[in-house]
Amino acid sequence: MVKQKSAKESVTIMTEMVLPNDTNTLNNLMGGRLMHWMDIVAAIAAQKHSNRIVVTASADSISFKQPINLGNVVTLRSQVTRAFNSSMEVFIEVTAEDIPARKKIMTHRAFFTFVAVDQNGRPIEVPEVVAESEEEKELFEGALRRRQLRLVLAKRMKPEDAVELKSIFNLP
Amino acid sequence: MVKQKSAKESVTIMTEMVLPNDTNTLNNLMGGRLMHWMDIVAAIAAQKHSNRIVVTASADSISFKQPINLGNVVTLRSQVTRAFNSSMEVFIEVTAEDIPARKKIMTHRAFFTFVAVDQNGRPIEVPEVVAESEEEKELFEGALRRRQLRLVLAKRMKPEDAVELKSIFNLP
Amino acid sequence: MVKQKSAKESVTIMTEMVLPNDTNTLNNLMGGRLMHWMDIVAAIAAQKHSNRIVVTASADSISFKQPINLGNVVTLRSQVTRAFNSSMEVFIEVTAEDIPARKKIMTHRAFFTFVAVDQNGRPIEVPEVVAESEEEKELFEGALRRRQLRLVLAKRMKPEDAVELKSIFNLP
Amino acid sequence: MVKQKSAKESVTIMTEMVLPNDTNTLNNLMGGRLMHWMDIVAAIAAQKHSNRIVVTASADSISFKQPINLGNVVTLRSQVTRAFNSSMEVFIEVTAEDIPARKKIMTHRAFFTFVAVDQNGRPIEVPEVVAESEEEKELFEGALRRRQLRLVLAKRMKPEDAVELKSIFNLP
Amino acid sequence: MVKQKSAKESVTIMTEMVLPNDTNTLNNLMGGRLMHWMDIVAAIAAQKHSNRIVVTASADSISFKQPINLGNVVTLRSQVTRAFNSSMEVFIEVTAEDIPARKKIMTHRAFFTFVAVDQNGRPIEVPEVVAESEEEKELFEGALRRRQLRLVLAKRMKPEDAVELKSIFNLP
Amino acid sequence: MVKQKSAKESVTIMTEMVLPNDTNTLNNLMGGRLMHWMDIVAAIAAQKHSNRIVVTASADSISFKQPINLGNVVTLRSQVTRAFNSSMEVFIEVTAEDIPARKKIMTHRAFFTFVAVDQNGRPIEVPEVVAESEEEKELFEGALRRRQLRLVLAKRMKPEDAVELKSIFNLP
Repeated sequence: MVKQKSAKESVTIMTEMVLPNDTNTLNNLMGGRLMHWMDIVAAIAAQKHSNRIVVTASADSISFKQPINLGNVVTLRSQVTRAFNSSMEVFIEVTAEDIPARKKIMTHRAFFTFVAVDQNGRPIEVPEVVAESEEEKELFEGALRRRQLRLVLAKRMKPEDAVELKSIFNLP
Repeated sequence: MVKQKSAKESVTIMTEMVLPNDTNTLNNLMGGRLMHWMDIVAAIAAQKHSNRIVVTASADSISFKQPINLGNVVTLRSQVTRAFNSSMEVFIEVTAEDIPARKKIMTHRAFFTFVAVDQNGRPIEVPEVVAESEEEKELFEGALRRRQLRLVLAKRMKPEDAVELKSIFNLP
Repeated sequence: MVKQKSAKESVTIMTEMVLPNDTNTLNNLMGGRLMHWMDIVAAIAAQKHSNRIVVTASADSISFKQPINLGNVVTLRSQVTRAFNSSMEVFIEVTAEDIPARKKIMTHRAFFTFVAVDQNGRPIEVPEVVAESEEEKELFEGALRRRQLRLVLAKRMKPEDAVELKSIFNLP
Repeated sequence: MVKQKSAKESVTIMTEMVLPNDTNTLNNLMGGRLMHWMDIVAAIAAQKHSNRIVVTASADSISFKQPINLGNVVTLRSQVTRAFNSSMEVFIEVTAEDIPARKKIMTHRAFFTFVAVDQNGRPIEVPEVVAESEEEKELFEGALRRRQLRLVLAKRMKPEDAVELKSIFNLP
Repeated sequence: MVKQKSAKESVTIMTEMVLPNDTNTLNNLMGGRLMHWMDIVAAIAAQKHSNRIVVTASADSISFKQPINLGNVVTLRSQVTRAFNSSMEVFIEVTAEDIPARKKIMTHRAFFTFVAVDQNGRPIEVPEVVAESEEEKELFEGALRRRQLRLVLAKRMKPEDAVELKSIFNLP
Repeated sequence: MVKQKSAKESVTIMTEMVLPNDTNTLNNLMGGRLMHWMDIVAAIAAQKHSNRIVVTASADSISFKQPINLGNVVTLRSQVTRAFNSSMEVFIEVTAEDIPARKKIMTHRAFFTFVAVDQNGRPIEVPEVVAESEEEKELFEGALRRRQLRLVLAKRMKPEDAVELKSIFNLP
């Protein structure tokens, strides 16, 4: 196994058209369909980084602010931000475009984590992530804090041990 | 509009069989498909509480611990926990069952929030939630803390103002 | 194998939203889609009763009186009524709800039968059904008559031997 | 509107391949999927006869004897048998074929009824059916008896008035 | 293996209704969905001729002239035209019908080729095609010319060797 | 309307995972499903170039050489090559990747054409394409020859007038 891979090697882009069955009574994309797409595009990025079968370990909280409409073109871009032994955090950015109206908006940012497993479903180590661009470095830095928040929320880490996390509350 | 509705009036139960197209190469249910089902069952609970069209506002972080297998029967139960003006928090519990093997496990607990809107997509007030059982009361109590976490994570509230949230960090 | 199981242990509830692809040109749910859902919810009830793989043996005649509309929430409730060796009759009740309009109607009642099979597809005995409530007892009683009608219609029983069935024609 | 149309003008043939998502754990076609296909092929035959929008009125009892396997080619043939004012009975024959194994079996015969409606969903008269071949004539003859059975089962006709139906019980 | 089979033994008819998810923003059937249906109906015809598993080898150029609308009934008819060792050319004709408007138009003609393979995916010989009707003979004759065009376009034959093909350019 | 747009502004990337329902009995991606994806990714490129609703006008012949397997990740990249009044040619390149096996192959190259239309479905002019890279220039040059082949095959141009096309046959 290679020891290190650059973040950009995992970049995955997915494009979807919003079809009638993806929408609610207001003709807006349903949140659940979008999360389904996020999971697929993020899983592929994690696969590319690890060259392994991967399983979803968690999805961080997602906030749905802007409606995406029937007929819009949705672009999802995913990229591994950091690895922790057998787990990888993946960052997903979603853009929605009403092409005839020339409107394009960045609608969502989300983080999913995946675990690389062998054929028997047992966790297996993955390469480290090398962050190169400014944005990649920032995502790499924040990954530790987000990981602590996940562990605290899943009650697998005591809040007082979440050193990095405390910073978002400006605490000693 | 009625002023108050009991939490249990919104209970919604959905049953799904895990089919081949829902699974990954390990024959396990993909996380994204499960989130898609969660969104639908939770949206229906929010609709029942508000008698309105509802749109997904957020999904709290979800952790996927136990794999759900091809052929399993998945039961999703949703219920509104608390309302805040036009928004409602919905609690979802997921159970997976391998019926021939007589194995049934509680696999996931998740929280989604929805906003009730009128025909033009504008937010509109919903009834208060009346919590009756012990569990309902506990969910009702925790809703405020979870709401503050959502607002802090979405950068719409300063951490120092998140009075309720601080309690999970045992802070003054 | 347990000898007996109560009818209510098999209760299964399924909730579906009527999406565009489920509807005809009048924006009403197509009958075939509803029968597809009925088959799934009934198969799960039969699985719960028998803890076996089950295969559909028959669907009794179904009459579609009231249209169900796009956007409606459809709730299907199934329950085993009676077992005959390896076969089980399942009762399905369908309710359709236009939640924003606060209209809820009981739209269909149907009976499907399933056969429990082993891994090689051979029929295998199932527990008896214990009917407890008034409605369960009534469904249990009627099961024999419905079974005779099925056998006569499938030309596997002579009409003159269908003792129970004759009662619906008030015959000696 | 034409007064009469021959039965064969409505013949509709549909071919489907059994895909993984259509099957149960034994790799056999699920009964509900087959009923879904039956409804579509029968609705098209009724549309062809009436040149109208049609809605499913009923499905007669269906018995599933032989399993249809993953990869099989399923051919459904439908044809209107007889019209009664605004309603039409449609006969469906299903054949399943394992082409590489050169096995072809006639697996199902079913009857569905449809009602022709105008743009507002109101029933509207349809042409009479002219039966020409021996089989068409036999189907035309039996249609009255099947209709009485449907009405008795739906409790819309008293058994003693079901003159034609009694014949299957050899009653006076 | 039989040495020869008549073209008409492979005839396959498929009927599809155009549903919302099959259409673009103008409510017309998307070209890609139609090609998907063409591939299935043609593969079944090739299977019937060869009694083998078949894989798509090529699709000839298709021109989409007339829009097919939401709610239309699409009939696809396929038939093997000629075999070349392990490969078969299949002709597909598509008709679209707006039944309530009594409009029926022949919309597409297309040619796909398939290769018969054994369980390991290796090409295997198929029977010759016997063309009987005038149309079948014409399709049989043209198959050689179309095959040369395919080979030239795929750069697997030099244009100067494509004797039959030159005829469409009236060349010596 | 802008007069000119660079080819690269239309680049669209789509990523799909091959799921069970997309495959044939050999567990290979069915050709028809791939053509369906090609049509979508190409239509979006044409939409981006024209900022209009687009309809598929034609698909050039496609040859399927290498099988794509269940679980593979398929990447489709599309780009407008040249515009002719209201029509645009789009080039599609398909790559299939077995990520755990670290195998990635370029499997298909295809050309589709689209027509930009207004809300009433009438053709409307689109910007010219500016080819910049070497590959874009080559694709731009070849577009005229491919267009003549399409017109000849569709019998809308006489072979003797297809000046550019003759070059592939090395003719005067």
